Amino acid sequence: MSGNTFGQRFRLTTFGESHGVALGGIIDGCPAGLPLCEEDIQKDLDRRKPTKNLAATPRRESDTVRILSGVFEGKTTGTPLAFMIANEQQHSKDYASLADVFRPGHADFTYEKKYGIRDHRGGGRSSGRETAARVAGGAVARCLLGTYGIQIYGATIALGGLRVPEIEMTAAGSRPYYAAHADTVMQWEELLHNARTQGDTLGGLVRIEAHNVPAGLGDPVFDKLDARLGAALFSVGAVKGVEIGAGFQAASMTGSQNNDSMAPEGFLTNHAGGMLGGISTGQSLVLTAAIKPIPSIAQAQHTINRAGEAVSITIAGRHDICAIPRIVPVLEAMTALVLADTLLLNLGCQTASTR
Amino acid sequence: MSGNTFGQRFRLTTFGESHGVALGGIIDGCPAGLPLCEEDIQKDLDRRKPTKNLAATPRRESDTVRILSGVFEGKTTGTPLAFMIANEQQHSKDYASLADVFRPGHADFTYEKKYGIRDHRGGGRSSGRETAARVAGGAVARCLLGTYGIQIYGATIALGGLRVPEIEMTAAGSRPYYAAHADTVMQWEELLHNARTQGDTLGGLVRIEAHNVPAGLGDPVFDKLDARLGAALFSVGAVKGVEIGAGFQAASMTGSQNNDSMAPEGFLTNHAGGMLGGISTGQSLVLTAAIKPIPSIAQAQHTINRAGEAVSITIAGRHDICAIPRIVPVLEAMTALVLADTLLLNLGCQTASTR
Amino acid sequence: MSGNTFGQRFRLTTFGESHGVALGGIIDGCPAGLPLCEEDIQKDLDRRKPTKNLAATPRRESDTVRILSGVFEGKTTGTPLAFMIANEQQHSKDYASLADVFRPGHADFTYEKKYGIRDHRGGGRSSGRETAARVAGGAVARCLLGTYGIQIYGATIALGGLRVPEIEMTAAGSRPYYAAHADTVMQWEELLHNARTQGDTLGGLVRIEAHNVPAGLGDPVFDKLDARLGAALFSVGAVKGVEIGAGFQAASMTGSQNNDSMAPEGFLTNHAGGMLGGISTGQSLVLTAAIKPIPSIAQAQHTINRAGEAVSITIAGRHDICAIPRIVPVLEAMTALVLADTLLLNLGCQTASTR
Amino acid sequence: MSGNTFGQRFRLTTFGESHGVALGGIIDGCPAGLPLCEEDIQKDLDRRKPTKNLAATPRRESDTVRILSGVFEGKTTGTPLAFMIANEQQHSKDYASLADVFRPGHADFTYEKKYGIRDHRGGGRSSGRETAARVAGGAVARCLLGTYGIQIYGATIALGGLRVPEIEMTAAGSRPYYAAHADTVMQWEELLHNARTQGDTLGGLVRIEAHNVPAGLGDPVFDKLDARLGAALFSVGAVKGVEIGAGFQAASMTGSQNNDSMAPEGFLTNHAGGMLGGISTGQSLVLTAAIKPIPSIAQAQHTINRAGEAVSITIAGRHDICAIPRIVPVLEAMTALVLADTLLLNLGCQTASTR
Repeated sequence: MSGNTFGQRFRLTTFGESHGVALGGIIDGCPAGLPLCEEDIQKDLDRRKPTKNLAATPRRESDTVRILSGVFEGKTTGTPLAFMIANEQQHSKDYASLADVFRPGHADFTYEKKYGIRDHRGGGRSSGRETAARVAGGAVARCLLGTYGIQIYGATIALGGLRVPEIEMTAAGSRPYYAAHADTVMQWEELLHNARTQGDTLGGLVRIEAHNVPAGLGDPVFDKLDARLGAALFSVGAVKGVEIGAGFQAASMTGSQNNDSMAPEGFLTNHAGGMLGGISTGQSLVLTAAIKPIPSIAQAQHTINRAGEAVSITIAGRHDICAIPRIVPVLEAMTALVLADTLLLNLGCQTASTR
Repeated sequence: MSGNTFGQRFRLTTFGESHGVALGGIIDGCPAGLPLCEEDIQKDLDRRKPTKNLAATPRRESDTVRILSGVFEGKTTGTPLAFMIANEQQHSKDYASLADVFRPGHADFTYEKKYGIRDHRGGGRSSGRETAARVAGGAVARCLLGTYGIQIYGATIALGGLRVPEIEMTAAGSRPYYAAHADTVMQWEELLHNARTQGDTLGGLVRIEAHNVPAGLGDPVFDKLDARLGAALFSVGAVKGVEIGAGFQAASMTGSQNNDSMAPEGFLTNHAGGMLGGISTGQSLVLTAAIKPIPSIAQAQHTINRAGEAVSITIAGRHDICAIPRIVPVLEAMTALVLADTLLLNLGCQTASTR
Repeated sequence: MSGNTFGQRFRLTTFGESHGVALGGIIDGCPAGLPLCEEDIQKDLDRRKPTKNLAATPRRESDTVRILSGVFEGKTTGTPLAFMIANEQQHSKDYASLADVFRPGHADFTYEKKYGIRDHRGGGRSSGRETAARVAGGAVARCLLGTYGIQIYGATIALGGLRVPEIEMTAAGSRPYYAAHADTVMQWEELLHNARTQGDTLGGLVRIEAHNVPAGLGDPVFDKLDARLGAALFSVGAVKGVEIGAGFQAASMTGSQNNDSMAPEGFLTNHAGGMLGGISTGQSLVLTAAIKPIPSIAQAQHTINRAGEAVSITIAGRHDICAIPRIVPVLEAMTALVLADTLLLNLGCQTASTR
Repeated sequence: MSGNTFGQRFRLTTFGESHGVALGGIIDGCPAGLPLCEEDIQKDLDRRKPTKNLAATPRRESDTVRILSGVFEGKTTGTPLAFMIANEQQHSKDYASLADVFRPGHADFTYEKKYGIRDHRGGGRSSGRETAARVAGGAVARCLLGTYGIQIYGATIALGGLRVPEIEMTAAGSRPYYAAHADTVMQWEELLHNARTQGDTLGGLVRIEAHNVPAGLGDPVFDKLDARLGAALFSVGAVKGVEIGAGFQAASMTGSQNNDSMAPEGFLTNHAGGMLGGISTGQSLVLTAAIKPIPSIAQAQHTINRAGEAVSITIAGRHDICAIPRIVPVLEAMTALVLADTLLLNLGCQTASTR
């Protein structure tokens, strides 16, 4: 595989460059009989759109999805579900000046090294724009998970180094920046405003949780649920760190502190983040992702061009100040894709259940 | 796949339970013509053995590897390379009392939920003992990487919450606990001694670096080098967090601080940890893993049995105080497996190179 | 995988139903730098179109392909190459009467059993129409193979039970019915005319050859080149038998007759069809496929409906008399896909070649 | 993948050379809770052994299997099931004279071309001896299929060009040569005796059937049950042709002859061989394989050596006259592996069945 397919049984293959004709994907392996329409996908795509906040740019992207196959009379048929999002409003010429220069923090240099050719317009395939197809695919996964009662929540727990006082997962979806707590929003806006003024950008932390996940999901050894979720989150461009449950704090705890005791009514704590031995425990899955600041800054930067000569660049154009909040539904989508796949992979793990 | 195969082109499939007949694996996809003998594997296995230090137990495991196929007259033939490590000195009866109880922090409960049956002796397949087969497979990957000049280093940078003052990667391999700095070793020994006295266990942080990695390795979107390495490390039982480069610190930096500027002589910093857009930059790959404390503690713990009743258990038997240092060569092995696979996957990424 | 992806390194994933919005696919793994434009794909699609012959119906299908991603300034970029063929002129209502009945020889019954739901319009996903996406994908594979000098030829060697006197592969492409010999064409037309008059349909035999294939392609044991090509041809709906080289005749030969002797100038015969031990010998690959008669006949047939009741049906609408000649470019495309994939898989089979 | 793994969910990875230390394999994905012991595997291995008949040589191979993991207290645990068959009685020196020469009809030349190195002793990995691991893996698959009532039968329907008058599948297993009819056995023995006298070898035809296969197995488009079974049979060294149902005869039939009509009580004929649109119909699966004559003949043959010089060779040593009957359990095993895998892959094809 060349990196554009995710999953084994619920498989999403995506395509599309930032300034190409279209983005989209094919889902292969979605069970037949799932009620689905374009609106189910569109509403998740809309959550990823640049909205009226200080983190995103005012550009307009309609990102309207069209289902091309795999749905008949309002239900999935078990055949490949292809979808497409046409690109529009492409200011490709904004990028002409970047054709021969490698932007710091971007994939320009590495794509050039790997492929010897690259679509430089807006970052091409390496642009965060490809995540629209992830969100669309994740929306279908979410519909499937919904039939099991599984819910996935994303929330911002830090931005620009400032952390929320407390984490409220289920309420975050309706707050600006998908904030895990309401009290921090105004301070974040100030940080964003300052960063924009200075031509700089910010990062943050995103918490992802999955509720009502049954025990027994995930496979031992190499395909632990931890490994699948870790890969899913690390596959999103801006993610530089991932924690499960207590995460890095667990490294400083003792075994007696970190072990989650059990009682007849269930686990008493969840330092493990809902996974033991790579398999779900039945508790909530808890993950935290570290999001790096957006590399496109308005300040002058030192870099080189294709000839290897030193150049200074200042990136013009419309750029976000922070990948948050737009990255939150992307991370939710990746989690949904992992869980849909893992649910299907779990079928047949016992002889009795194969019949 | 059911979780016991790692890699796409350089593929390792492992087998074996803690107290079964044997552990081992099959490597499929190792290029023909690589000089290889059992000693090349044995020397990495020996690095994983419980040695004379305060973290590990005094038990004897010879862990002698035997190559069963795929090598002829001292070279790999391109056919599957199978290897086996016979199990010995099995005190299975030590575990009889644990057959019906779920140890906190272990996979007993989740295996039971998933499979409805489990080999409870020493944790069965969920035991850390399976990592011997990873190390053996990783040793072969390391030999292949060596032909490219790629070197992988592992070092302990914190234990029991105490961090080294400075990180020296290449010297760590010959120090106790694979310590990244010599000055901290005695303090760690004190912490380990205290933990053992209290019947408790410790965790820590491990840094992994790969040097001389060429630019251009890794695949865009879902199979980013970040995602492959993240999955590799998270697939190791005790890992609860993974960072690439600046990791969680990047979340608090601004874009102008975090971006690695380029000059004609190369990158000026390496906050990215050697990857941009999921593809290697040519700098060193830098990863940090958070290791949880070992769950088998000598203190009494609350848990339940298979009947769902509350019970108190105290785990007897031979157990390590900390997964460090034994986990270090395991994390190195996983990194080697990813890089060997990614090198082979990279062949043919350009039309010119396919001939 | 759920059956809609073909290949491991050069991977084609297709989508689309006979009467849906569109058909298409994504190629992942095509090396960067390959010159490619829509016309390269269109000319193979045009070879599959219903043309003015007695085997096909007079319906119009423009089958115009559009590339959506993966090509920049006339060359592939190494990123996923998506393409789409919009559906047009859909007489879906022709099929309304077939919504509840299972056509003999078709997949209506089996799709119903498997999925519990099916898009009955024109056979949905099970329609031969899906092969358009194979031909498009195969066209890209063919371009890649062309850079190695590999040529793939298809020819009809029997139709309606009547065989050509002699097989001329390279000239067949320009003859009606892709006939392997010119002398049989008129007799075939008579057979086709008679079949149409009787409301019946015909089958035939197609020979596929690949010339200039280097020795060493294919993998031992399960992924023999024989197995990959066999699966490729058997994946095409109408194929009921596949031979490699001497095929079924080999079963009646002795070892001394069947063995291909070697001389310094090469093999003296090619009973093996260009493969030994699953790996190409450097001779031409030679395959023969048995094509069943088209199941949609104009005669009354006994079958059952979804309620399990006996019914008689006569299939109206536009149907071909024989899958030949349209199936010939499809079988060529599948062969091209196998070879492109196998070429890429072969990279790195020796240590020396990995650098 | 490099060719030594078969299946997606029920996966067999094999290893071993003809004259290496051992052969064996790992099954990953076998559901937990299946009753299994070594004897279940051994009895299928014993069916593949050279027995007292005129087709095989009198050499002794004990082929004793040992299970190394994955079974606990008589049941599979869901973890990898590894097994091993130690090699014995190796007359490697018999082959020393063949180290530098390419035997006609064997894989010597192609392995040399592909890998640049080969274990020439007894054909190394390309020897038919690797099929022992297939039979062992297939035996486990067969146990799983047995819990569904699925039975697989193999029978020889022609040998040396002489066909049985009639095909009786279920009785064949207990007859010499797994003969599909008792009347032909003596004539086959005469043919075998004559071939041996002349230093020559024979081929034949093998029929494989699977009974009690439920409708709905197999996946559309590329992973049709036809394609999976075709690949499975073509992956066995000596197979040069495969037919499904009416096979090559279907190419000469009309649609009205070939279509299998349906009635409320089921299909009236089975020309389709139990598959429509790549999915099982609920009828018996019917396949026929063409087996080429064994290439190791006792007559002098023209070939070349590694230096490219013309040489004449006469192959000494112990060789079978015909791959039949030993190949019959191998083809049964491959069919069992496909069906076990396809059964597991079918789980979750409908939304309702995913819960």
